[in-house]
Amino acid sequence: MKVGFIGLGIMGSRMAGNLLKKGHELVVYNRTREKAGPLVDRGAVRAETPAGVAEQVPVVITMLTDPPAVAAVALGEDGFLGRLGKGSLWVDCSTVNPSFSREMADECAKIGVRFVDAPLTGSKIAAETGQLIFFVGGEKDDVEFSMPLLEAMGRAVFPVGGHGMGTAMKMVNNLLLAGAIAAFSEGMVLGEELGISRKVLFDALLASPVAAPILALKKPMIDAGNFEAHFPLRLMHKDLHLASVTAYECGVAMPSSNAARETFALALRYGLGEQDFAALYQYLKQSP
Amino acid sequence: MKVGFIGLGIMGSRMAGNLLKKGHELVVYNRTREKAGPLVDRGAVRAETPAGVAEQVPVVITMLTDPPAVAAVALGEDGFLGRLGKGSLWVDCSTVNPSFSREMADECAKIGVRFVDAPLTGSKIAAETGQLIFFVGGEKDDVEFSMPLLEAMGRAVFPVGGHGMGTAMKMVNNLLLAGAIAAFSEGMVLGEELGISRKVLFDALLASPVAAPILALKKPMIDAGNFEAHFPLRLMHKDLHLASVTAYECGVAMPSSNAARETFALALRYGLGEQDFAALYQYLKQSP
Amino acid sequence: MKVGFIGLGIMGSRMAGNLLKKGHELVVYNRTREKAGPLVDRGAVRAETPAGVAEQVPVVITMLTDPPAVAAVALGEDGFLGRLGKGSLWVDCSTVNPSFSREMADECAKIGVRFVDAPLTGSKIAAETGQLIFFVGGEKDDVEFSMPLLEAMGRAVFPVGGHGMGTAMKMVNNLLLAGAIAAFSEGMVLGEELGISRKVLFDALLASPVAAPILALKKPMIDAGNFEAHFPLRLMHKDLHLASVTAYECGVAMPSSNAARETFALALRYGLGEQDFAALYQYLKQSP
Amino acid sequence: MKVGFIGLGIMGSRMAGNLLKKGHELVVYNRTREKAGPLVDRGAVRAETPAGVAEQVPVVITMLTDPPAVAAVALGEDGFLGRLGKGSLWVDCSTVNPSFSREMADECAKIGVRFVDAPLTGSKIAAETGQLIFFVGGEKDDVEFSMPLLEAMGRAVFPVGGHGMGTAMKMVNNLLLAGAIAAFSEGMVLGEELGISRKVLFDALLASPVAAPILALKKPMIDAGNFEAHFPLRLMHKDLHLASVTAYECGVAMPSSNAARETFALALRYGLGEQDFAALYQYLKQSP
Repeated sequence: MKVGFIGLGIMGSRMAGNLLKKGHELVVYNRTREKAGPLVDRGAVRAETPAGVAEQVPVVITMLTDPPAVAAVALGEDGFLGRLGKGSLWVDCSTVNPSFSREMADECAKIGVRFVDAPLTGSKIAAETGQLIFFVGGEKDDVEFSMPLLEAMGRAVFPVGGHGMGTAMKMVNNLLLAGAIAAFSEGMVLGEELGISRKVLFDALLASPVAAPILALKKPMIDAGNFEAHFPLRLMHKDLHLASVTAYECGVAMPSSNAARETFALALRYGLGEQDFAALYQYLKQSP
Repeated sequence: MKVGFIGLGIMGSRMAGNLLKKGHELVVYNRTREKAGPLVDRGAVRAETPAGVAEQVPVVITMLTDPPAVAAVALGEDGFLGRLGKGSLWVDCSTVNPSFSREMADECAKIGVRFVDAPLTGSKIAAETGQLIFFVGGEKDDVEFSMPLLEAMGRAVFPVGGHGMGTAMKMVNNLLLAGAIAAFSEGMVLGEELGISRKVLFDALLASPVAAPILALKKPMIDAGNFEAHFPLRLMHKDLHLASVTAYECGVAMPSSNAARETFALALRYGLGEQDFAALYQYLKQSP
Repeated sequence: MKVGFIGLGIMGSRMAGNLLKKGHELVVYNRTREKAGPLVDRGAVRAETPAGVAEQVPVVITMLTDPPAVAAVALGEDGFLGRLGKGSLWVDCSTVNPSFSREMADECAKIGVRFVDAPLTGSKIAAETGQLIFFVGGEKDDVEFSMPLLEAMGRAVFPVGGHGMGTAMKMVNNLLLAGAIAAFSEGMVLGEELGISRKVLFDALLASPVAAPILALKKPMIDAGNFEAHFPLRLMHKDLHLASVTAYECGVAMPSSNAARETFALALRYGLGEQDFAALYQYLKQSP
Repeated sequence: MKVGFIGLGIMGSRMAGNLLKKGHELVVYNRTREKAGPLVDRGAVRAETPAGVAEQVPVVITMLTDPPAVAAVALGEDGFLGRLGKGSLWVDCSTVNPSFSREMADECAKIGVRFVDAPLTGSKIAAETGQLIFFVGGEKDDVEFSMPLLEAMGRAVFPVGGHGMGTAMKMVNNLLLAGAIAAFSEGMVLGEELGISRKVLFDALLASPVAAPILALKKPMIDAGNFEAHFPLRLMHKDLHLASVTAYECGVAMPSSNAARETFALALRYGLGEQDFAALYQYLKQSP
């Protein structure tokens, strides 16, 4: 299938790479032009604007940072949405908030474009190896239509419900991720201050059913004190912010998740925004 | 081996049962006399006081609610500690705080008794089936001596370090457990309010590496709205309190764990103390 | 001066009453038509739509619940903004967020209308007696022009800066108010559980420099267990939400204010939204 | 009256100075010997141990850092309690927790010594000028007997109830103080980031009934960025810790106060423990 791909950052470039590998033709666009280079070398066609992508394909996948970035690329100057033909499909893999996904679905409906929100979970390694998990919201037929594309990039695809429901599930998933790293970081620092070695802490906790399996990925970071970002702390902070806004809209209280959000906010202010979100450990561990 | 066992509640009675099953002779004591009945029927000898246990055995295992309960049984009127012979061993499986374990070790040292802190993780089902995980602190020889007893009751034993270190690790483990249930409860309520079905939430989250495996045990409780206690909420609150006190002693900040603690405190006040700690979900879900 | 007044709730009706008393001619509008009755009886002219207000006056004051309500009345169907003549002034007294105030200022600028954000602090009694405090943002001339109107409704007017700065200051003010009631409620419940009488607690705390003077207003509510709203809990929750969104936009961490926000969210879920925000005390005090 | 005074730190030395000024004879002791120098120069008698104080006086006042410090001086080696004659009075002005005050009262009762807990509120300036406020717990006669001494050091004395009730009230008072500085610090940082000048923030907030009057004392510190301690941050952290332990004992939830406590814990770890507790502002304001 001929597919447009917009947003070639840490995750997007790897996802697009897997689509190429599975034999899809790609038309790509990225704001920072050079990032498209490696994909173009592998056969992707470069478009000069988001609109330029839409003119060449019936399906556009977006993988962008946040709602304003998605809105700009879709609806801004040279945005792609107005150039998509009737019956085309937009698959938004960005992590946004459910009400934003529903807004985008409404914008699409006005002009006869189909919309699927398909955010994902997984690190840059999972993106590289096609092991992502997708949570998908949209009309049943549209979700089915998008399946082969999503399966080219991931190992599991969960249809969750109508428009915005994929985004909703992703939001919940990231709440758990944030909660896991917050509790783990606090526990590690407490354990170390009590005199337990870091190695014993890791061995015992990762063998225990109380620890999320994903935490194993953070062991080398914490061991080396090197938090090069798989998933930057500032984006985790953004996700918690969007979840908090959504909780307000739904009348839900989230005392622990919001406490974690504020600790991320402090870490951000302390200069750790571009580090991996596991640098929360570093922040709590710091001493004068 | 002839072993004393003091504290025959939900967990202790099942642990003692496994010792019997593995062929150990038991002398048992419980404040509420009747609870010893089933073990006596299976061959255990009943003592009328904690001191009465100590007079008959070279090893005493305790499984009690909190530091005051342990102190009372060990050092109070008819306490067992004074009656233990020189070179005897006390294995305390209660969940207490590290500084308390060290105090008990010091009390033992004064009278030539050996001490091991060996708190455990696992639900009443794991206690029943001998699948508990033990975290052990103490002198190397004493830890080794206690191994066969602990292995009779559990599937893994982690030596963590000196006196109090088993307790320290258990404390960290329970912090992660509390963080897991807090994030999960908040995420479930948010997801349901956003319109995701409970079934899809469970399926997708438990397949995701962000969720602690132990959360699967809570699915039937949440589905049925029946939170009969495996591990009562008030004891989770107690553990978080002890962790918070220990964090103060160590100069560690734990913003998220403390936010969870306060939500448990609210749920306690609301009357959910004797429910399973997963009733935190129920508390957040409530509406007028 | 001939003045339009839109939004005649608990606060707005009393503020409009003071403008009448000081001799201003009023054209009023409220979504629930009957609420305008008492003012019409005192000489105000009723308009049938927000637009109908704008057609008759050079100055419109709005006192509405939240940003969506303000946007609907200003920019929605029959909104007033399009009908205001060039050089007219809009004074928005609603409690919104600073970025929203700046958006409204921009909308006004497009059509040559002047804009002042002038949110206020004070209870319904202060509204009744003209003792409100206004925080004002806008161009210097416009702020000066609005002074006599604001002074007719309040006892102090603080010019804070450009567009949105009045709103910004109000937001900070309400953060302190929320923090004051949260600490006070927690302290009162703790004190009472420790056995101190409510009377002694009030006397000693209100004499102490640690308590915000406004807390004295809440004594009769707490004494009587009657939390008829001066300022409803759900609006305090909304204000904390807007502050939290603004803090995110500015990169500021607010751990305590956000903890208070989540406790308000729980109280809201518990059914206390229409009670005065001092019912936070009641929520913390509850027992099964 | 001949009075013993133990604990001559920032506060104690000034309080003892006022007793001298009012004509009382003093016998003083301080662990760091030199701190007694200025009082000895003014006529106080120096004792070489706490016990040495008790041997010379019928009334001992203590002003120490925390429960362990009080316990050591009263009950430790060369402690004063065993040397006080029957019918003597101990007035403990230290900020401790209510259950500790009751324990000390019990220790006193065993040996026929009377006990009053009389913690106080006020800064080092208030200590200097005799403007402290005392909260007093104890038997009615004993409270009355201690009145002239307390009035020599303060401007108001609130009898709160039996043993431990003075301490209980102080605890509540400090909770409000911590809440006030936390909300104020968060609000100031938010306001400044929104572009409001620090001066306008101070003027408007301190004129508003939402701000605790004591906050005015922190203006010069914040203005100068100089947080030389009136009341060190680490002691505020300790007080919040004791309040949190007491809340656990009483079954009270304090989500906001505990969030503040954890922010103080972070600030402590960051090296601000010896600064004034208003340095919380500095901690939140920091950027990389």
